[in-house]
Amino acid sequence: MGSLVNESFSIELQQLDAASTDTARKERTQWLLTSPNPPSLCHELINTVKETVLPHGKTTKQSRKGAFFSFMQGLFPILKWGRNYKATKFKHDLMAGLTLASLCIPQSIGYANLAKLDPQYGLYTSVVPPLIYAVMGSSREIAIGPVAVVSLLLSAMVPKLVDPAVDSIAYRNLVFTATFFTGAFQAVFGLFRLGFLVDFLSHAAIVGFMGGAAIVIGLQQLKGLLGINHFTTQTDVVSVLEAVFRSFNKEPWFPLNFIIGCSFLVFILITRFIGKRNKKMFWLPAMAPLASVILSTLIVYLTNADQHGVKIVKHFKGGHPPSSVHQLQFKDPHIGEVAKIGLICAIVALTEAIAVGRSFASIKGYHLDGNKEMTAMGCMNLVGSLTSCYIATGSFSRTAVNFSAGSETVVSNIVMAITVLLSLELLTKLLYYTPLAILASIIISALPGLIDINEACHIWKVDKTDFIICIATFFGVLFGSVEIGLLIAVGISFGKIIVDTIRPSVELQGRLPGTYTFCDITQFPVATETPGILIIRVNNASLCFANANFIRQRILRLVKHTSEGHIKEKINVLVLDMSNVMNVDTSGIVALEELYRELISQGMQLGIASPSWKVINKLKAANFLDKLGKGWIFLTVGDAVDGCLTSKMDV
Amino acid sequence: MGSLVNESFSIELQQLDAASTDTARKERTQWLLTSPNPPSLCHELINTVKETVLPHGKTTKQSRKGAFFSFMQGLFPILKWGRNYKATKFKHDLMAGLTLASLCIPQSIGYANLAKLDPQYGLYTSVVPPLIYAVMGSSREIAIGPVAVVSLLLSAMVPKLVDPAVDSIAYRNLVFTATFFTGAFQAVFGLFRLGFLVDFLSHAAIVGFMGGAAIVIGLQQLKGLLGINHFTTQTDVVSVLEAVFRSFNKEPWFPLNFIIGCSFLVFILITRFIGKRNKKMFWLPAMAPLASVILSTLIVYLTNADQHGVKIVKHFKGGHPPSSVHQLQFKDPHIGEVAKIGLICAIVALTEAIAVGRSFASIKGYHLDGNKEMTAMGCMNLVGSLTSCYIATGSFSRTAVNFSAGSETVVSNIVMAITVLLSLELLTKLLYYTPLAILASIIISALPGLIDINEACHIWKVDKTDFIICIATFFGVLFGSVEIGLLIAVGISFGKIIVDTIRPSVELQGRLPGTYTFCDITQFPVATETPGILIIRVNNASLCFANANFIRQRILRLVKHTSEGHIKEKINVLVLDMSNVMNVDTSGIVALEELYRELISQGMQLGIASPSWKVINKLKAANFLDKLGKGWIFLTVGDAVDGCLTSKMDV
Repeated sequence: MGSLVNESFSIELQQLDAASTDTARKERTQWLLTSPNPPSLCHELINTVKETVLPHGKTTKQSRKGAFFSFMQGLFPILKWGRNYKATKFKHDLMAGLTLASLCIPQSIGYANLAKLDPQYGLYTSVVPPLIYAVMGSSREIAIGPVAVVSLLLSAMVPKLVDPAVDSIAYRNLVFTATFFTGAFQAVFGLFRLGFLVDFLSHAAIVGFMGGAAIVIGLQQLKGLLGINHFTTQTDVVSVLEAVFRSFNKEPWFPLNFIIGCSFLVFILITRFIGKRNKKMFWLPAMAPLASVILSTLIVYLTNADQHGVKIVKHFKGGHPPSSVHQLQFKDPHIGEVAKIGLICAIVALTEAIAVGRSFASIKGYHLDGNKEMTAMGCMNLVGSLTSCYIATGSFSRTAVNFSAGSETVVSNIVMAITVLLSLELLTKLLYYTPLAILASIIISALPGLIDINEACHIWKVDKTDFIICIATFFGVLFGSVEIGLLIAVGISFGKIIVDTIRPSVELQGRLPGTYTFCDITQFPVATETPGILIIRVNNASLCFANANFIRQRILRLVKHTSEGHIKEKINVLVLDMSNVMNVDTSGIVALEELYRELISQGMQLGIASPSWKVINKLKAANFLDKLGKGWIFLTVGDAVDGCLTSKMDV
Repeated sequence: MGSLVNESFSIELQQLDAASTDTARKERTQWLLTSPNPPSLCHELINTVKETVLPHGKTTKQSRKGAFFSFMQGLFPILKWGRNYKATKFKHDLMAGLTLASLCIPQSIGYANLAKLDPQYGLYTSVVPPLIYAVMGSSREIAIGPVAVVSLLLSAMVPKLVDPAVDSIAYRNLVFTATFFTGAFQAVFGLFRLGFLVDFLSHAAIVGFMGGAAIVIGLQQLKGLLGINHFTTQTDVVSVLEAVFRSFNKEPWFPLNFIIGCSFLVFILITRFIGKRNKKMFWLPAMAPLASVILSTLIVYLTNADQHGVKIVKHFKGGHPPSSVHQLQFKDPHIGEVAKIGLICAIVALTEAIAVGRSFASIKGYHLDGNKEMTAMGCMNLVGSLTSCYIATGSFSRTAVNFSAGSETVVSNIVMAITVLLSLELLTKLLYYTPLAILASIIISALPGLIDINEACHIWKVDKTDFIICIATFFGVLFGSVEIGLLIAVGISFGKIIVDTIRPSVELQGRLPGTYTFCDITQFPVATETPGILIIRVNNASLCFANANFIRQRILRLVKHTSEGHIKEKINVLVLDMSNVMNVDTSGIVALEELYRELISQGMQLGIASPSWKVINKLKAANFLDKLGKGWIFLTVGDAVDGCLTSKMDV
């Protein structure tokens, strides 16, 4: 074993045993040359499609009835865990569900307000989607309902098509239609196992995006907090601050809004602080928003503050969610735009839900199937769009509350949904005097959870490129729009992949003392070069049109540079370590042929070490192996060096 | 040396020497852990810019005067070779230049016709650019002048802005402006060493594009060959054939055009055939076009065929190329479009010129600096645009003739340019009666050289994906337009890079008998797995947001699959061979952490073998190494297996 034997010993051994070594090496090269053909392109394509579309793993033989039942269990996980559901679990779920409802009611009204919809639509969204998710979803902690970022996305994009201030019904219909598209896209992603599309928003991009979105949402709340009538439909910082200053100059200002909003914001933040310090008081921050709503409503009702400029919710429709089937606008002229909004919301909503679901699943130690989750989310939004709901997804803040409150299963979502439904039936009239400022302060209080400065610092420490993506997305959202932020994130991320492919690194390798391992001589200063042999490794998975010329030039430059340095000993052989190169295309082969010709014209020989499966096959097909000579193909760099030294001895 | 020692022997050795091995292995891991920091992002960026913009290699110390002189020599290679130029060389160059001129004059007129310009502009383009190239270029064989593909590009794109049939002067001015932009882009590419932009058209795409363009050019010649008055400005097959059939039904048809064109086409093709059979008769196909022009002109003049429907060139302006400085239209409303056309033409023209220049340079065994060539081409087109020339580049067919005619230096281009200039001054009146059909047949006769069926077959044999790119580009040009063809080529090529990154392969590795080398067990059926240890290699240069989840899932699936197979022996350790992974981002680290947690929850340990420089650094920065335990990082897969076996023995 190479790593065990020291160098001098092995050199002796080599001299003793040069002939048999030579045979062994040739046999190894033969393994390489006679390896079976790699799977064809057609075969690979079929495999990729199969793996993408069909469920994982081999299906074990089952009876038809069993297969159907396991399929149904896959689609409706409730059939599986519902059988073993016990009263003790329900006790926990009931408590968690009630806590969740008390946080969910004020937040839903606030997010509906952020999405420029009437309050009841936020509440509807906390009734239907959680119920659908409960039968189809497999996360046990996630809390379903409207969330801040998606509400912001809708309010930033749909008003460009129809102004809600002008025609609120048409606006609402477009929101339902967008919800339908979101559900459809999510279901398709799940059914066709296209979950990887969600990965296109990298971790760093999400951190930047969430931070930017939180600040934008906070700024939007200035409208409610300051009681401004004429606000802007733009979401960027500059427009919003301009609108605020304009309103200071032009409108009468009622400081009562601000005072009520701020004092309750302080109250909520203090309860949050207490809850954080003392984990057992988790219910305090969860209850605080509802308490604030009740208290502030009472105060306004008793003091008639609404007649002194405090803006209030006023009447909104209660009762169960009505059908919205006939309100979906598929013949709208903006339908293409609406579908695009649906797609963006689908990806952002899934990203949030899967991130939150997966992180809690890994705490509890179970696995979450992303594709099944997507199907569940898609169905819940599809049904939601037919029952007057807008886009629902898993909420960061409420899921954390659900977890702390000891939820055992998704039954807590059912409890929450029923509680919200009861409130809709009975209590909407009580919310008449609720000040809008309190809704703003509830939304603002949920924002710090979205701004993750620690994570941004961590990203800075670990990966500077990722930090650039993070910060560019953040500023894109802040000063451009949510769409621009997302575009920047995806653009930089994929741009980096392309740049890495176009300009891969090429490294000089040396031998580590006492081993037969060859490593980058810059990284390992202990590594030594072998006299007369230059070992160069290509550090990219593909030698293709986009980098073949660059790599060829780099190699030739390294050869020239090293030749100038080694005046004493001429370089005879260039060993190209292709272990990293998984594939080569015709441009790559042309570059290798040119490299070979240029080396020969400089009196050097080219040796190729550890070409991968596809590479050796294509070199064979292109007749390059015959040009090069089969003696110059080696299984490993070690073999190549051995081979070169032997052939030198022979000369 | 690993490759020398047989397996059983090494195992004995291991047992004898287990303790010292352990120390050695730990020392090697230490090398890995204490390797210096890799260059920072900032440093890398600066280096990339430096390498891109500044010339290669270290500059040796020189006197200022010497440095200036070598700079001038770099810019004007004629200063270098001009000193040693001898009369014997001139004899060869003179012969080559005259042969070239005889081919160049009819081709230039034909290509000008293809580009929808008057004949003299084609001839001007064969005068000024070759002279500029002669002082700045470094290829010795290339023949500069108008070429078919670029003429087609102009005639396909500029008429969309201004119809030449309506306003031929405005059209011509836009062509000059496009030429100016082409020159400017080429010069910028050369000066800033952006030569890699030309690589974006892969070898396969060029083969497909040239084939498609040749057929499109051939179809365009039907106008001249059939003497059609009303033709289409579209270039796709369907539109052209429709236009031809329409003209059959509506216009009177003069078969004489067709008869003259075809008979001389047959004549030229026969001379070409003879020239190919007998290499010494190379001058015959080179002279045939000029002979055809003279002969057909005489025939038309003597028989008054122009009064029987044969379309003729008629009068065109002779004399030296006039200035066109004031005809450049920088204030045109279409200026953005014109710049785009200039960019496309710049890339296509450079691709053709560099391909042809490099292939002949490699035959003669000298190196061609792509960036210097680009600067030279840029300057010649810039000057050309100021002297009534349109875009010139290196021609495939004429360069081959120049080479066969024994050209020694670029002086043959000077001879050709002077000959063309003399003809312009003296002989233009003689071309009054030249039939247009003969120009069409000269262009058609040059097309078979652009359609490379052999190369397409070779591509099919070597790389199926490349063949798809080739054939898609071909059909894109044929049925869409030249732009659509180019877009398809670049789109598929980069799409493939992205797909490869998103869905990299993950392979199970086994040990090759008698070695300490670990290889893909599918490729090498002789490889054997080590009991209790699963070795998995990630086959992509980057573990990033786009593939981290996919890789994690693939690995877990492999683990599950293999665990089910190995009922006898439980898998204790998963060794992840990261030798191919050059970089990791924060999403990749998160995926590794999740993988680690899931493995631990299944009672397995994760070991990481041969992480690259950046990877080990980022894992350190992200504190993942501390979580994993430094004992689970190994320099090589061999070390990892050793380490795992030892730790098992300890247990």
